[in-house]
This record gives sequence, C-alpha cells and structure tokens, in this order.
Amino acid sequence: MLIEQRLLPHEFKVVPARDFRQTARAIKDMVVRGAGAIGATAAYGLAQGAREFRGRDRARFLRHLETVCATLKAARPTAVDPVNAINRVRQAMRAGQTIAEQQALALAAAEEFAEEDVRHCEEIGRHGARLVRDGMNVLTHCNAGWLAFVDVGSATAPLYAAQAQGKQFHVYCSETRPRSQGATLTAWELAQQGISHQIIADSAAGHLMQRGKIDLVIVGSDRTLGRTGEVANKIGTYTKAVLARRHNIPFYVAIPLSTIDWSLKSGFDIPIEERADSEVLGAWGITAEPQSGTRHSKSNKRVFVRVGNATSDALNPGFDVTPAALITGIITPLGILKPRQLWVRRRELGCTS
Amino acid sequence: MLIEQRLLPHEFKVVPARDFRQTARAIKDMVVRGAGAIGATAAYGLAQGAREFRGRDRARFLRHLETVCATLKAARPTAVDPVNAINRVRQAMRAGQTIAEQQALALAAAEEFAEEDVRHCEEIGRHGARLVRDGMNVLTHCNAGWLAFVDVGSATAPLYAAQAQGKQFHVYCSETRPRSQGATLTAWELAQQGISHQIIADSAAGHLMQRGKIDLVIVGSDRTLGRTGEVANKIGTYTKAVLARRHNIPFYVAIPLSTIDWSLKSGFDIPIEERADSEVLGAWGITAEPQSGTRHSKSNKRVFVRVGNATSDALNPGFDVTPAALITGIITPLGILKPRQLWVRRRELGCTS
Repeated sequence: MLIEQRLLPHEFKVVPARDFRQTARAIKDMVVRGAGAIGATAAYGLAQGAREFRGRDRARFLRHLETVCATLKAARPTAVDPVNAINRVRQAMRAGQTIAEQQALALAAAEEFAEEDVRHCEEIGRHGARLVRDGMNVLTHCNAGWLAFVDVGSATAPLYAAQAQGKQFHVYCSETRPRSQGATLTAWELAQQGISHQIIADSAAGHLMQRGKIDLVIVGSDRTLGRTGEVANKIGTYTKAVLARRHNIPFYVAIPLSTIDWSLKSGFDIPIEERADSEVLGAWGITAEPQSGTRHSKSNKRVFVRVGNATSDALNPGFDVTPAALITGIITPLGILKPRQLWVRRRELGCTS
Repeated sequence: MLIEQRLLPHEFKVVPARDFRQTARAIKDMVVRGAGAIGATAAYGLAQGAREFRGRDRARFLRHLETVCATLKAARPTAVDPVNAINRVRQAMRAGQTIAEQQALALAAAEEFAEEDVRHCEEIGRHGARLVRDGMNVLTHCNAGWLAFVDVGSATAPLYAAQAQGKQFHVYCSETRPRSQGATLTAWELAQQGISHQIIADSAAGHLMQRGKIDLVIVGSDRTLGRTGEVANKIGTYTKAVLARRHNIPFYVAIPLSTIDWSLKSGFDIPIEERADSEVLGAWGITAEPQSGTRHSKSNKRVFVRVGNATSDALNPGFDVTPAALITGIITPLGILKPRQLWVRRRELGCTS
C-alpha cells in the first residue's frame, strides 16, 4: 500500500501495488518518490516478486528473480537507493536453503530495510532536535520529510523530534519552484503534524533573513560527497546557504548514510539533471477561486496551466551544489558532523571502498 | 488606448479608455501597471477630464478638475508617479487664460510628460548599453520593461540599446514568483524584441552564477533612497544582489529620477507591502498540455489554480531592500552613479527639499 504522492496535497489516497510489476510501475510513475521511500518500496517489490513464484525449479526461480530485480532497477535508473535495497535483499536471501525459505527471508529483509530507514531518520531527529530551540523560526526547502522516506524524514526529523520534546517553533516552507514540493508536500506534512508553518516564495527567504526572521536552515540532500562535504540538493539550496552565511544563520543538511557518495572528488563532477522546460513555464494545481476560495477548490482534478510566455524557452537545472564551507553541519544518524569529518570517519559511516 | 496587461502573455489586446473615469479604472484594475506607465496614463486622464468639461463657468471647471484629480489619484493610492504627473499637468494649465486654452495645455502637458518618460528611459539605455558586451549572459528580475513605462523601460533599456548597437547577448528572466512578471511580461517583451532569452526559476540564478553563466545583473526599482543608495524592488532582488556579490558579478539598478525618495533615512523605514497569501498558494495561467503542448493552449481563458496545501497559510512580502554596498552602480538618465553619489548630486537629480 503506497501513498499516491502525485495527488498531494489536494487528495490523500492510498493505493495498492498488488505484484512486483505494479510496484515497479509505482516507482517509475512517481506514485512514490523520495530516496528512502523508493528504496524500501523496491525492497518490498523484490519480496513480492520472490513470493509470486510458483514451482520448485530453483534455476527457474533464479531467472525469475533476475527479471524482478531488473524490472525494479529500471524503474528509476539514476537512483541509487533501489539498487542498494535490492542488493541487500538478495544478499539476505542467500541464507535460505529452499525456495520457501528464500521467499520468507526476502520479506524479512525488506521489512528490516524499511525499519532501518525509520531508525536512521529517528537518529537524525535525535541528534538534530537540539538545534531547534523554543521560539525559533526554521527555514526548509523542497521535501525531505516522511513522504520521501518510510517515516520521519531527514530534514524534517529534527523538527518532529523537537515537537515531541514539547518545543514551540515555526517553519517557513520555501515553495521550491518549479515542482513546488515545499508548498505541496512539506506544507502538507507539517499541517498533518500540527506544526506551525507558512509557505513562502523562494525569493522571500533573503528578505526574511535580513529582517531577523529566520534562525536556522535545515535541508535534505540528494547526494553528499564524502570526500569534500559538498552537498547536491534541489535547485535553490545553494542560494539559501549563501544567504544564511551572509546573515550568520546556521545551515544544516540532514542525510541518511545512503546519500553519501564516496567516489566523486569534486562537486563540479556531479551531473546536474536538466529537466523539461514545461515545469518552469507552468504549474500543476486544481482550479480554485483566487481569493478566500483558495481553501475551497472547485474540483480535485489536477490541471496544468501555462504561466509563462508561450514563445519563450526555459532553462531548468534540477539540482545545485553547496560547498562545504557554507555548511554549518551535517546531521547524520551517527551525530552532527562538520562536512570535512565525513571522510575522516568514513569507515563508521559505511564507506567500503 | 492601453495595452490590457492582465491578459499578457497569453493575449495581446489594446483597449480604449474613453473618458477620465475609464482611465482611472484602468489604473485601479491594473489594466496598466508600472511606475512610468501609470504616471503617463494619469496625465492623459487629467487631460481627458479637462476636455470632457462643457461650459464656460470657470468655478465649475475648477471643481470638475478637482473631481478628476481626486479620482485619478485614488486609483492607486500608494503610487507616487500619478501624483507627480497630475501635479505637472495642473501646473502647466495655469498658463492658460481661457478654459479652451487650459484644455489644450493639459493635453500638451500630458504628451510632454509621456515623451519625457521615453527620453529618460532612452538616456538610461544610452548610459547602460556600455555595460552589455558581446556574448554576455544578463540576468534580470521582475519586469521593468517598456510595459512598465511609456516605452523602452528602465532595466531593459540598456538591453534594447545594446541590441540596437548590434551586440549579441542572452538574457535570463527570473520567473519572479508569486506573480511571475519575469516569466510573463519580461519574457514576452524580449520575445517581441527578438532578444535571445530563457525563463529560469527564481532558485536557479545562484547555480548559474556558480557555473559562470551570468556576467551581469540589471534590475529596476520601486523606490531608491537618495540619502543612502538603498534600493527597494520586487521580492527576490536582494537575493540576486547577495549572490552577485559572492560571485563578483556586477549588479546594476536602472531607475528613472521619479523613483528616488529623498526623504527616508533608512531602508528599514520603507514599508514592505504584505500581499494576499493566495498569490503564493497558487498561480494564474491558461490550461495547456504539460509537455510539448505548453506552446499550444487549449483556450485563452486565464484560470487560477491552487498549487500549495489548502490547510497551510503563506507569507507574501512583495518587496525587499538591497543595501548600497551590494550595488555596483545605479543607471540614471544622467549617467551611471555609485549609490552614494545620489545624495552628492541631489540637485541635478531633482531633489528640491
């Protein structure tokens, strides 16, 4: 059962993925999105695929598993989390003697993978919560919340942990054009959690910092370089880091260990995905009255509207790279580290190369 | 005849304003917007009002003029340009002996006001064009183009002048959420002028600067403090200035003299308008296919879509303030000045206090 994220925030719906092919399709079509979430979904997809096999022929079972793994990996070819998840489940299955044992081990490994994702996010929350003090205003960007993981989230984990400790604070969700994950997913999550928050235009963060209205920035990461401490994340993250530095506001990045790239030597080597220009030229939403009626939509049917000039093109880099020097700390499941400490402590952090 | 700016970029339509009341309504309803444009429109509105008077009773004519001026000034109570324009026309009318003479003088003064607006923008272009060199990539924000003036524009003036000199360059139009004037108005203007350009999300400028893809920033201003050189402009301008400084990219502000505020002593005293949160929670556009179909809309009917979470509020500051230290130069009709030179040369620049 998966949250149909494409309908959020306008509709909350849980949809079934009844076999491994439906699960792969849910990943491919972005029913489920977010590093941790697609990793765990792929792990369960492999367990599903294993259990769908009927028969006793071990060679056929292995060929079937190859098809399952290839289908799941191909669903999001550039993501690293599904690959790690699938490798973990395959590894666990080796301990089984029979097909039935291997099927049971696959499910157990998927469950363990998902539970580990939650534990890591909880650890991020435990370490990060001390950064959030009563009365603070916290800025975040994009969505690195529980929707993007199995639960808790990365950038949101310190917020949820601080809330559980009874702290009162306010969160600014930077809209995150062009796909608006801040205005749609993060705002929706915080509303579900009952955390005080407001959506702001991406351009408004600098002004709020200048007027002393932001005390802390926490963002997630799509890829963090273990060698340099550089952080690739949603476009606009770098801008927030530059602004935070100018105003001496602490800037933290919350990451599960699976996000760390131990091989690349420079942030300039990270490929920056250029996405479709239609994302910048328009917006997805539901038709509504512009004034008070923003609360009351005419229907739940999502439509795409073109906003920009039809005879103009757009340039749409999806990510940017924030240098280590602008990052106050990286909140990991093992504690809050300076960016340069990642390499020093690489063995503990899971670097095997 | 006014360009119906609310329909742009989806439809280009010129609409008549047949009497002073229609003209006042066009200003109030934002058929026409932009400092220079509403100033000139108010000047013509007063000339219209004067010419609508029938009769020979001078006392009645004066009372009628009071009504006309009050109606036009009330159309946009916080704007300073219509007030200056109306005062200029009233002043010119004093030279007339008869009602007919005063009616003729009003029209002549309105025409002179509009022509002066064009001349000032052309002077900004003449001075600013030398900043634009062949092969440059120029970033602008919001719309300070000819739509916002009678012609030429302020921030766009150096671009149009450089184009006329045969220079080749590329412009990035920062989208300018929440009202998207960069994606709608500036992109549309540049397309009309045949200038190479692309729309980018507001969050993308930092990344482009980091990758060496922006050589020059030119923006307009809603209010520039003559005493300090601080610049109030559309939200997001300050962020661009901070990013430009980090990357040693020249940051210029183009202003007509009417934008200078000679009284305020600090940028923190500039009232920052908080606009409706519906602007941040959604977007105006026309329904279209999200992929290649962004070029081909289903209809020209503008609709509002809610994008953000319905149970979340938004914070929507409309402007921000850029300190003088981040501004490389201010392009005025009299030449390019350092921000601190405004006060030194205040007499030439029109300071009468």
